[in-house]
Amino acid sequence: MKTILIIGAGKSTSVLISYLHKQSFAMDFQIQIADKDVAPVQKIAGSLERCQITSLDIFNEIQRRALITKATIVISMLPARFHIIIAKDCLNLKKHLITASYVSPEMQALHKDAVKNNLLFLNEMGVDPGIDHMSAMQIIDQIREQGGKMLLFESFTGGLIAPENDTNLWNYKFTWNPRNVVLAGQGGAAEFIQEGTYKYIPYHKLFRRTEFLHIEGYGKFEAYANRNSLHYREKYGLDNILTLYRGTMRRIGFSKAWNIFVQLGMTADNYQLHHSEDMSYRDFVNLFLAYSPTDSVELKLRHYLKIDQDDNIWDKLLELDIFSATKKIGIKNATPAQALQKILEDTWTLQDHEKDMIVMYHKFGYELNGQKKQKDATMVCVGKNATETAMAKTVGLPVGIAALQILKNKLQLSGVHIPINKEIYESVLNELKKHDIVFNEKESLYLGYNPNGVQG
Amino acid sequence: MKTILIIGAGKSTSVLISYLHKQSFAMDFQIQIADKDVAPVQKIAGSLERCQITSLDIFNEIQRRALITKATIVISMLPARFHIIIAKDCLNLKKHLITASYVSPEMQALHKDAVKNNLLFLNEMGVDPGIDHMSAMQIIDQIREQGGKMLLFESFTGGLIAPENDTNLWNYKFTWNPRNVVLAGQGGAAEFIQEGTYKYIPYHKLFRRTEFLHIEGYGKFEAYANRNSLHYREKYGLDNILTLYRGTMRRIGFSKAWNIFVQLGMTADNYQLHHSEDMSYRDFVNLFLAYSPTDSVELKLRHYLKIDQDDNIWDKLLELDIFSATKKIGIKNATPAQALQKILEDTWTLQDHEKDMIVMYHKFGYELNGQKKQKDATMVCVGKNATETAMAKTVGLPVGIAALQILKNKLQLSGVHIPINKEIYESVLNELKKHDIVFNEKESLYLGYNPNGVQG
Repeated sequence: MKTILIIGAGKSTSVLISYLHKQSFAMDFQIQIADKDVAPVQKIAGSLERCQITSLDIFNEIQRRALITKATIVISMLPARFHIIIAKDCLNLKKHLITASYVSPEMQALHKDAVKNNLLFLNEMGVDPGIDHMSAMQIIDQIREQGGKMLLFESFTGGLIAPENDTNLWNYKFTWNPRNVVLAGQGGAAEFIQEGTYKYIPYHKLFRRTEFLHIEGYGKFEAYANRNSLHYREKYGLDNILTLYRGTMRRIGFSKAWNIFVQLGMTADNYQLHHSEDMSYRDFVNLFLAYSPTDSVELKLRHYLKIDQDDNIWDKLLELDIFSATKKIGIKNATPAQALQKILEDTWTLQDHEKDMIVMYHKFGYELNGQKKQKDATMVCVGKNATETAMAKTVGLPVGIAALQILKNKLQLSGVHIPINKEIYESVLNELKKHDIVFNEKESLYLGYNPNGVQG
Repeated sequence: MKTILIIGAGKSTSVLISYLHKQSFAMDFQIQIADKDVAPVQKIAGSLERCQITSLDIFNEIQRRALITKATIVISMLPARFHIIIAKDCLNLKKHLITASYVSPEMQALHKDAVKNNLLFLNEMGVDPGIDHMSAMQIIDQIREQGGKMLLFESFTGGLIAPENDTNLWNYKFTWNPRNVVLAGQGGAAEFIQEGTYKYIPYHKLFRRTEFLHIEGYGKFEAYANRNSLHYREKYGLDNILTLYRGTMRRIGFSKAWNIFVQLGMTADNYQLHHSEDMSYRDFVNLFLAYSPTDSVELKLRHYLKIDQDDNIWDKLLELDIFSATKKIGIKNATPAQALQKILEDTWTLQDHEKDMIVMYHKFGYELNGQKKQKDATMVCVGKNATETAMAKTVGLPVGIAALQILKNKLQLSGVHIPINKEIYESVLNELKKHDIVFNEKESLYLGYNPNGVQG
């Protein structure tokens, strides 16, 4: 019998497994799930007839290859850095591979060999990257087929808390890897183009240069720039586009408050604090403020970052209890980022009954028959509960749908790919619609940064 | 005849060479100078009787070892990363070595072998590091010998322009490696302790957290924190000190204006700009500002960084002509830091007739016989001209004096060392005095951060 092998069954795999399982009877295949830690997988898939669960140490070559040998298609849901180990096995053992992660240079290097062996290594097949590529390319291709010329493409995604559980002042909870949230935006400057001019935002200004967005029925959002907006310029065929911007969505006011942590230096991850284990939250804050024998940590912070008495940023800080003299960081040799994450997790951890929400917003500006036009496409997906999250759904379904397309021999591509080809995105987006992952499109006059072509 | 070999004869070696040459007759030794580029060395040392000049590619092992074999003592004035090549030769060929650079981990690793071979590898023998170590340790040792207990040590150094040539609004010119000035403070956070509490300043706040200093006859200065204040805590024997801070001195107002470049992101060196070669200074500034079809670069900058109409920071920016639409960066694939350096070099390059100035300021707080006391020690050295600079003098003399001490067998140390031992610093500081490198000391009541022991 045909077998789909899923390696790594973390948080985002619940929907993937149940989706594949539902199809496994009609299409007659079985699902092999391999993870280091089988207990959580047993909970999700233990009672499913066509699912087999095995414990796997991915560094055990013999066991790993034995599993891959028996598979028809391999899905790697491991942390991104481990995909390459699986990919090399897939090449040797002649298996197709799907991941939801960015194509690493090592993965890209396998392209020719994959083509030679007629194998498809399909990456960036989750939500972001994944659904963003597919939904954007569908509309870009449509515009081009009509004879339109792309002027502007902006794309925003956010992993947020569902409105009914949006109960804190930050309008934010950790619905995904908290460490990635704390470190977001670090590295080089954010780079993008607006009306043909390159723009660079350094990390310490990133959260003060936000854009604003509105999604009907869901209200206002803000977005800060991603580092890699220009990364897909060539891949999307947008080499001459005037405006290209990718961003991360939050509720209005999040970034301004988050900027307090950035300004203080609390998000740094490149050095370790002295004596972090027994440090109180208050001591942690005080590390980043000037010494004073008399002034309070509170007043020093207000003065340093010029926070007015009536600024509600202050209430956001109080909600996190960052001035507590009794709560301890409790981590040895913590970096500032690790200490901050600990403080945030007290307040921002998703509870079992709470739901997450994925929001996506694309703006397309284009010229058609001498007229400048704009199309806005938005998608909102709310989770069912803390297991069947919107994240698990929007990551798991595209991966699962692609696996079935390969199983049915409906994808004739070979090599290392991302889902920007019509051949891939059309069938996946059609199937996603059946699961209520739908983009609402709205046409308007072009509202770019310089619609009237003023010479600045 | 005994031979002192100087490898690398850059800007800071003019005073070293003339000092050694003057002593070479009485002490009967010759000076061998080796550099990749001999033309500039010919100008300085070509007419000196006991100096021989050779062209040397330091990667030519045979030629390099031949020169070192003939030497009694080797002085490496190469860029710091190359010292280790010379040090390994010195170990094999049994030669003493002097450098003016920080001890690298690779250099430190040679300690045992150097001891075994009875060789002295003396590093950090310039001004900062160098004179700072020696002058500080002399006073710290004196305080301890009297039975005093160290409470506070703060140390500041600056390479500045001499008052008579201090003619621009920044009160600053490049008297040393411009690239190091542009990148100053980058990396991890600046780390120090004040009254027993650790403090960390992230790079983007470094230039807004300055300390102020006054040197009699020379007026006011400011200082921003160095990254490595705690690096010498153990070496100086200050493990239980309450306040330990090292900083870099500038004239008042420099840091506040420099912060404009930091905030914009112009000092970043970790990515390359698109199309930098043909970019005007104005375009460069505009890269870091939001797009607008109508607003000027000037107004966008004023608004973004909240620069008031009457703030003289603006005049400092105008003096650099950063809004010029005609002047070009002219560097391919420049990083922002390289582009900024180009703009600054137009205005800040030291002219031949101009003099530099080295300033150093140490504060020592201590308790003696139940009384809290403070000693401030300051040193100012003004250059003669653009060749015999204060930098060349304060780097070259300590190196030269140490070389002669070794030649006279007056230093009985072996291994990898920095000049914190009385055996080294006493004779060097005595000799420096004869060349007008003198510290003025002033006693006062303890003026630490919490002189009355208030419980905060």
